[in-house]
Amino acid sequence: MDLLIKALDNFPEIWAGDSISDIIFRVSQENDWIWQNEDVVVIAQKIISKSENRYKNLTDIKPGKLALQYSETVDKDPRLIELILSESKKVLRTRNGLMIVQHKLGFVCANAGIDHSNVIMKDGNNENWVLLLPEEPDKSARLIQEELKKLTNVRLGILIIDSHGRAWRNGVVGTTIGISQVPGVVDKRGDFDRYGYKLRITEIGAADELAAAASLMMGQADEGRPVVLAKGFPYHLRNSETQELIRSESDDLFR
Amino acid sequence: MDLLIKALDNFPEIWAGDSISDIIFRVSQENDWIWQNEDVVVIAQKIISKSENRYKNLTDIKPGKLALQYSETVDKDPRLIELILSESKKVLRTRNGLMIVQHKLGFVCANAGIDHSNVIMKDGNNENWVLLLPEEPDKSARLIQEELKKLTNVRLGILIIDSHGRAWRNGVVGTTIGISQVPGVVDKRGDFDRYGYKLRITEIGAADELAAAASLMMGQADEGRPVVLAKGFPYHLRNSETQELIRSESDDLFR
Repeated sequence: MDLLIKALDNFPEIWAGDSISDIIFRVSQENDWIWQNEDVVVIAQKIISKSENRYKNLTDIKPGKLALQYSETVDKDPRLIELILSESKKVLRTRNGLMIVQHKLGFVCANAGIDHSNVIMKDGNNENWVLLLPEEPDKSARLIQEELKKLTNVRLGILIIDSHGRAWRNGVVGTTIGISQVPGVVDKRGDFDRYGYKLRITEIGAADELAAAASLMMGQADEGRPVVLAKGFPYHLRNSETQELIRSESDDLFR
Repeated sequence: MDLLIKALDNFPEIWAGDSISDIIFRVSQENDWIWQNEDVVVIAQKIISKSENRYKNLTDIKPGKLALQYSETVDKDPRLIELILSESKKVLRTRNGLMIVQHKLGFVCANAGIDHSNVIMKDGNNENWVLLLPEEPDKSARLIQEELKKLTNVRLGILIIDSHGRAWRNGVVGTTIGISQVPGVVDKRGDFDRYGYKLRITEIGAADELAAAASLMMGQADEGRPVVLAKGFPYHLRNSETQELIRSESDDLFR
């Protein structure tokens, strides 16, 4: 069984209003990709946010009382802290320069996923501009899924991913924040092992495993490879949502 | 840029004393694999443990006082709890049927990685037998690396992986527990983005991203695909150790 992960070369810079699906389709053709049913398209969050114009300029932000309070202990611009708080349900931990939050979208991540690197405006300005996560990444994924289905005539899965830090381990890994048609979690409960014993392992984070694989080929710095195509994902596509991957607070032993 | 992840078909059952490297080499030939420099071999922990005879029979284990104490709140055989404690540095959390520990090897995992599924003895018996993690997985990986280098005449990387649960998210993902020559963490600190800005993201958990990709193709149940070969890993091989991937307790906000 083979899994092929292809990072698309020569992906253009994305601007507010661009059609991500049109551009993916065009660049996939330039990369000689043969679309097949159940291929998965993995997209870096950043280009979705850019196309959806999720830019904020810090000069427009007025930090509130809570943000100013955090800024005394967290080494961050109070205006950025204000934005982080406005994108979050709950602050879980803080440390110098780092706020681990539960994002409004449900998942736990650093600094509410707000990003400054690789953010630039058309006039070449990047001072004070930051980029929020897509407002509804599952909806963004679904839209791209439908548009690409029309363009390619095959049924695809879509993942929108970001690089997340982890408890206990060093290094960020690609992690699902938006999904369409890719199973988030594959449930093996009730399955048996080769000798008829119940399985120890019950739920596989399949979408996150693919997110990690794709992230490996996107790189993080100046590579400019925000879209990865995957062939051979070993589970059938189905309706899905990112929520599957998010452990509820009551089930979580580490919040 | 392409990453190819190939799960080897028809991998045989592994018994204590088997040479994993000989078997991988033979099965890779049967799978028509062309070995190239910087290919990575990803191996499920379980077959390493089996080859190293890391079986324990619960009937040989006498639970101590602490294990008996835990058994009052954790729904587990006290003899298994005794084994988990003996394999661990520290118990972080417990819940019905689950002990999250810092393993003696440094990483955090459930039940000290002790496994019952897919464990069987040559006489067909699997009652009461469990399997511990390899005693020194980095050493196991290094040995296999050296042996496979002789057999293939190319320089390879080796990962030994297990499926680990995560804080905050549902579903297990493939995670590195032993390593040779694959960079554990790729350090991007000091790198710049495409517009000359310092990167937000500083350390990539590259080995764990590959571990997740490989795990996706191994499956968890009765598939019997414990070895995955990878071509196109995007970072150069170097000396490495699993320790790179383990966050120190003092740096960890979630213990």
